Amino acid sequence: MIRTPYLLFLGDAPDQLAAKVAQGINDWRPENVVGQFRMEGCKADVGAVNMSLEEAWDKGARTLVIGVANRGGVISKSWQAVLTQALEIGYDLASGLHNLLRNEPEINAIAAREGRVLHDVRVPTIAYPIANGKKRTGKRCLAVGTDCSVGKMYTGLAMDAEMQNRGLKSTFRPTGQTGILITGQGIPLDAVVADFMAGSVEWLTPDNDPDHWDHIEGQGSLFHVSFSGVTMALIHGGQPDALILAHEPTRTHMRGLPDYALPSLEALRDMALPLARIANPACVVAGISINTKALGDDEAARLCEEVEGRMGLPTVDPFRHGAGRLVDALQAV
Amino acid sequence: MIRTPYLLFLGDAPDQLAAKVAQGINDWRPENVVGQFRMEGCKADVGAVNMSLEEAWDKGARTLVIGVANRGGVISKSWQAVLTQALEIGYDLASGLHNLLRNEPEINAIAAREGRVLHDVRVPTIAYPIANGKKRTGKRCLAVGTDCSVGKMYTGLAMDAEMQNRGLKSTFRPTGQTGILITGQGIPLDAVVADFMAGSVEWLTPDNDPDHWDHIEGQGSLFHVSFSGVTMALIHGGQPDALILAHEPTRTHMRGLPDYALPSLEALRDMALPLARIANPACVVAGISINTKALGDDEAARLCEEVEGRMGLPTVDPFRHGAGRLVDALQAV
Repeated sequence: MIRTPYLLFLGDAPDQLAAKVAQGINDWRPENVVGQFRMEGCKADVGAVNMSLEEAWDKGARTLVIGVANRGGVISKSWQAVLTQALEIGYDLASGLHNLLRNEPEINAIAAREGRVLHDVRVPTIAYPIANGKKRTGKRCLAVGTDCSVGKMYTGLAMDAEMQNRGLKSTFRPTGQTGILITGQGIPLDAVVADFMAGSVEWLTPDNDPDHWDHIEGQGSLFHVSFSGVTMALIHGGQPDALILAHEPTRTHMRGLPDYALPSLEALRDMALPLARIANPACVVAGISINTKALGDDEAARLCEEVEGRMGLPTVDPFRHGAGRLVDALQAV
Repeated sequence: MIRTPYLLFLGDAPDQLAAKVAQGINDWRPENVVGQFRMEGCKADVGAVNMSLEEAWDKGARTLVIGVANRGGVISKSWQAVLTQALEIGYDLASGLHNLLRNEPEINAIAAREGRVLHDVRVPTIAYPIANGKKRTGKRCLAVGTDCSVGKMYTGLAMDAEMQNRGLKSTFRPTGQTGILITGQGIPLDAVVADFMAGSVEWLTPDNDPDHWDHIEGQGSLFHVSFSGVTMALIHGGQPDALILAHEPTRTHMRGLPDYALPSLEALRDMALPLARIANPACVVAGISINTKALGDDEAARLCEEVEGRMGLPTVDPFRHGAGRLVDALQAV
């Protein structure tokens, strides 16, 4: 539905994490990425080639994807000039932000005048049901994190890719804008109305073959007070058979909450598993995914080994080491 | 803002619980209630005088309040004739259902033609912030339940009333349609977009005097897979200093989920308290509220005594016995 390939708009991203949408697209569907567009003061770089709007257009880019998120999901005033210029050149726009492209009067007017399409992938387009809690066939895996943005989506994408490579039945189920922009389907969970959150997750992960695994994209954290309700809806709507604990070892406090320390992996396990067993008494913690991006190879290997010894669970960075051992663990469930 | 007094519309309520909105208004603001309107097959009775639309109008009723909820919150087709007749007589309509009065073409057209007001109290009218988790001054109390509809709102209303009677600083903070219809303010939490749930609860319960208590209306249950995400947002957005455990002893399974058994009060305590301490490490479980409506006086007293002995916490039915002992417990926090 969204015209490919993309030019990834990083705007004036204040840090690398703010560009995780663009990073996800570039990592998992590089064939769809022509380049990245960075404004003055941009602190993010997803590793694509830096390009001007005109240059990328000439190389075939047809949609400018807003691959950067402000806190609260606003469309920054400082982006306006770039976005309107892109529309004039010929680009469609795609965005997963809370504030909608279509609600920006100038952007909407130019898009209408030039015949461009504005894709607001954050907006639910389905009337989701209220969750009924009925046991569904097939298997489901959910990554839960010690914090937001610790690699839950990557974990799911990597496990899905590994299962596909092995010829196993597997589907990645996106629950956020990046996943939707990568795969072209999914639910924009954090934009769903409260009463229908768990129902939207049930809708996303319906009955399936007994040996099929859904890899449900995690959101937020039970320990992140801003978004824990969203995480809760994933745990109960997803009724996972397996949880993967996800962690980023260099985080000094909960993202955006300077007064909140990160929980230990033990605390995460002990909080998440009893909650998951309400919806699925057979649920187990199958493995641990550590985001070692900030560490060197040796340090990353040592940390995974230490955690594995301590927790008694296969522990890898799926992006660095592959998701093979996590998939092995699922196969044993 | 809503014209009083009310005629309470019970429609064709399938059971007594379905009319809990009307019941709450009649119990807590009986001075605002002229009577109740029941359709053929109505299985609920909130104890108000049965009246026709004309009769109640002559006795002064000015708003017909839809005091009954279907699962999913729809405006039933079978109600249409009554609602349109009410508009023609002169009533405004007020509703807390998900489906909005204003979106029913016939109702909307007649209201516009006759100059009546349609109050959809379920619709958020504020752009709530994302929760920031900052410690706020003042004290907060939240009731958490073993299930939905076990008396959490009643508990908060009764504790607030008791504190007011004692001349203490106290505010009831509604988070659902009944509470909003009773007090005229609050947040329609289950209609808030996922990312802003906890922020809306922070907004509802701002900084206050150190000796002031907010009694936050509870919603759902951590053990109810359809709505646990909403409960989670209340626990983290409300950062309660005290939890009250709420229970209904005759429930045979989770409301609407025949495959789910109710948790014990011990299980509720052990699940809710560690979650609450993420946002407020000083949080305690202060008491237990048992909804003994289905029991005789002796049986109710025996049950409360048994639970109190087992759990080591003051245990009452605040509606039957008063909330004095729960307020005593808060004073000791």
